[in-house]
Amino acid sequence: MSTSSRIAVDAMGGDEGLAVMLAGVARARRRFEGMKFILVGDEERIRAGLQNHPKLTAHSEIVHAPDMIGSSERPSQAIRRAKTTSMGIAIDMVKQGRAGAAVSSGNTGALMAMAKLSLRTMPGIDRPALAALLPTLGDNDVVVLDLGANTECDARNLVQFAVMGAAYARTAMDLARPRTALLNIGTEDQKGTDTIRDAAAVLRDAHHLPLDFTGFIEGDRLSRGEVDVIVCDGFSGNIALKTAEGTARFVADLLRRAFRSSTRSKIGFLISKPATDLLRNRLDPNNHNGAVFLGLNGLVVKSHGGATELGVATAIGAAAKMVRDDLTRRIIDDLGNVRAEAA
Amino acid sequence: MSTSSRIAVDAMGGDEGLAVMLAGVARARRRFEGMKFILVGDEERIRAGLQNHPKLTAHSEIVHAPDMIGSSERPSQAIRRAKTTSMGIAIDMVKQGRAGAAVSSGNTGALMAMAKLSLRTMPGIDRPALAALLPTLGDNDVVVLDLGANTECDARNLVQFAVMGAAYARTAMDLARPRTALLNIGTEDQKGTDTIRDAAAVLRDAHHLPLDFTGFIEGDRLSRGEVDVIVCDGFSGNIALKTAEGTARFVADLLRRAFRSSTRSKIGFLISKPATDLLRNRLDPNNHNGAVFLGLNGLVVKSHGGATELGVATAIGAAAKMVRDDLTRRIIDDLGNVRAEAA
Repeated sequence: MSTSSRIAVDAMGGDEGLAVMLAGVARARRRFEGMKFILVGDEERIRAGLQNHPKLTAHSEIVHAPDMIGSSERPSQAIRRAKTTSMGIAIDMVKQGRAGAAVSSGNTGALMAMAKLSLRTMPGIDRPALAALLPTLGDNDVVVLDLGANTECDARNLVQFAVMGAAYARTAMDLARPRTALLNIGTEDQKGTDTIRDAAAVLRDAHHLPLDFTGFIEGDRLSRGEVDVIVCDGFSGNIALKTAEGTARFVADLLRRAFRSSTRSKIGFLISKPATDLLRNRLDPNNHNGAVFLGLNGLVVKSHGGATELGVATAIGAAAKMVRDDLTRRIIDDLGNVRAEAA
Repeated sequence: MSTSSRIAVDAMGGDEGLAVMLAGVARARRRFEGMKFILVGDEERIRAGLQNHPKLTAHSEIVHAPDMIGSSERPSQAIRRAKTTSMGIAIDMVKQGRAGAAVSSGNTGALMAMAKLSLRTMPGIDRPALAALLPTLGDNDVVVLDLGANTECDARNLVQFAVMGAAYARTAMDLARPRTALLNIGTEDQKGTDTIRDAAAVLRDAHHLPLDFTGFIEGDRLSRGEVDVIVCDGFSGNIALKTAEGTARFVADLLRRAFRSSTRSKIGFLISKPATDLLRNRLDPNNHNGAVFLGLNGLVVKSHGGATELGVATAIGAAAKMVRDDLTRRIIDDLGNVRAEAA
């Protein structure tokens, strides 16, 4: 079987424990026929956990890792332990060409630092970025990056993020020229920081890039489906992503309270339950799990620390799709074409 | 009558036009007995508009302004026209002591620049900040600042915002020691930028401040009601505020679609309508309108550009409450006490 149909899973990372990780992998396996898994972690515990998943056992191998990365461990400390930890070894499977992607629900900072050190950035990319697909009112999701890999960014980083995000959108959503915008605090040209204005100036003139730069977008229009890619530094992106998650939960909580506020509304709730269930399903972050580090010579997918079985399966599904679509190659080609046309 | 019971209104600012502004003022007047208004703008048009509001006419005076500030006018250009514009003259009413507060739905950047130039910052404050109350799941709203007045901030600015935000929370929500947090992309000490970590170090040791510093808070917990004041630079704050607004609207739009998706859900919707109306009312930004520039020697309240009659009335109500509570004096006193105790 080819490398690309194998996914390395950090079985030990995440807040929900090994059993949830394995259940998530088993669920993903049922969706992606032909996919094989390398389960990295404490061999004895994984073997015990696999007893509940005979079919997954047949489609996976175990690679023992004596150690694991703690959820609050500093990246600088974590990278020194790369070779003995489940996270580090899972990434190494990608580097060695034994897996097409690595998936972890562990410590984001450590995952980023290890992935960067092991896989190195692509030619033409200074820093990788964390990207995810978020739901919109439109037909497609929107790619948002960076979501927290780079707390501070310069204009050059933002331009590179735009190219990578557009390549991701082209691959994931089959778009020819993704509409790409910079996140800002206003839409007028003079708004925002020098960094954002400088990045906008470059993107506005870069007609050779395989994207349509649409200017600035504000936080209130993230989910309108008006653009395909939203670019920002990792601080703003993380604030936006988490605020969106928190607000969706806040509204859902208020809705639940409202429905419980009277007998009449309880009845209304029961009748409209299929409709509200659809909504809940649409907003469940476990249905959008799986952010990818773009700009590395290999695929590393970050699953949410608190991902459920469904969430883990979604992240692995996202990784499987990126492997199948050969996303890394697509981004390298795009960057190469950009350089060739710019030359 | 005392100055403090008079509010100057920029009648010309905002996207919805003079009629909506006047209707909003009239609505606020009915709620705040004894409050008087100075309506600043084109005298002829205001006089014509007031024909629909005889009671407001009896409780207001008109101050003519030959000009107005455009919605996309640069602040640097706007301040040169302060003396002839409705926005500039409304602020001047506060400076002259003729009004206790000025309210405008116009250009935020221009309002900020004019207010700062005219009213000057309080002793001990380097830069004013834009603050608003946002709804939470808890008993109280949460004060969030800065929401866009300062695109970039240093640690000293953030500490001053914390003191001002806490004073606002003490006044608006009658709290002795507001729980105050810094917005960040993680809760661990090493997370975020140097600026945020430096501000945290100062606040952690500042036991003489009339607030309880609770550390970092992430975007997904803004609305949980766990803190009373959230401090951030104007860029992050604007992204967070607008993302929250946009996401609330997104969820409401999805909910509307879900309810329309079948006859059964339509019936459920009709039955539970009183409950969902309550929710809609709770989330309507017009019910939370009125951000205030803190740190100036006088009150200036920013109403949303697209505020409806209800929104304008809410912003004027917020201004009336700040005037009644003498918020400016409270903040100056707090800052004085902080300095005295720190000395």
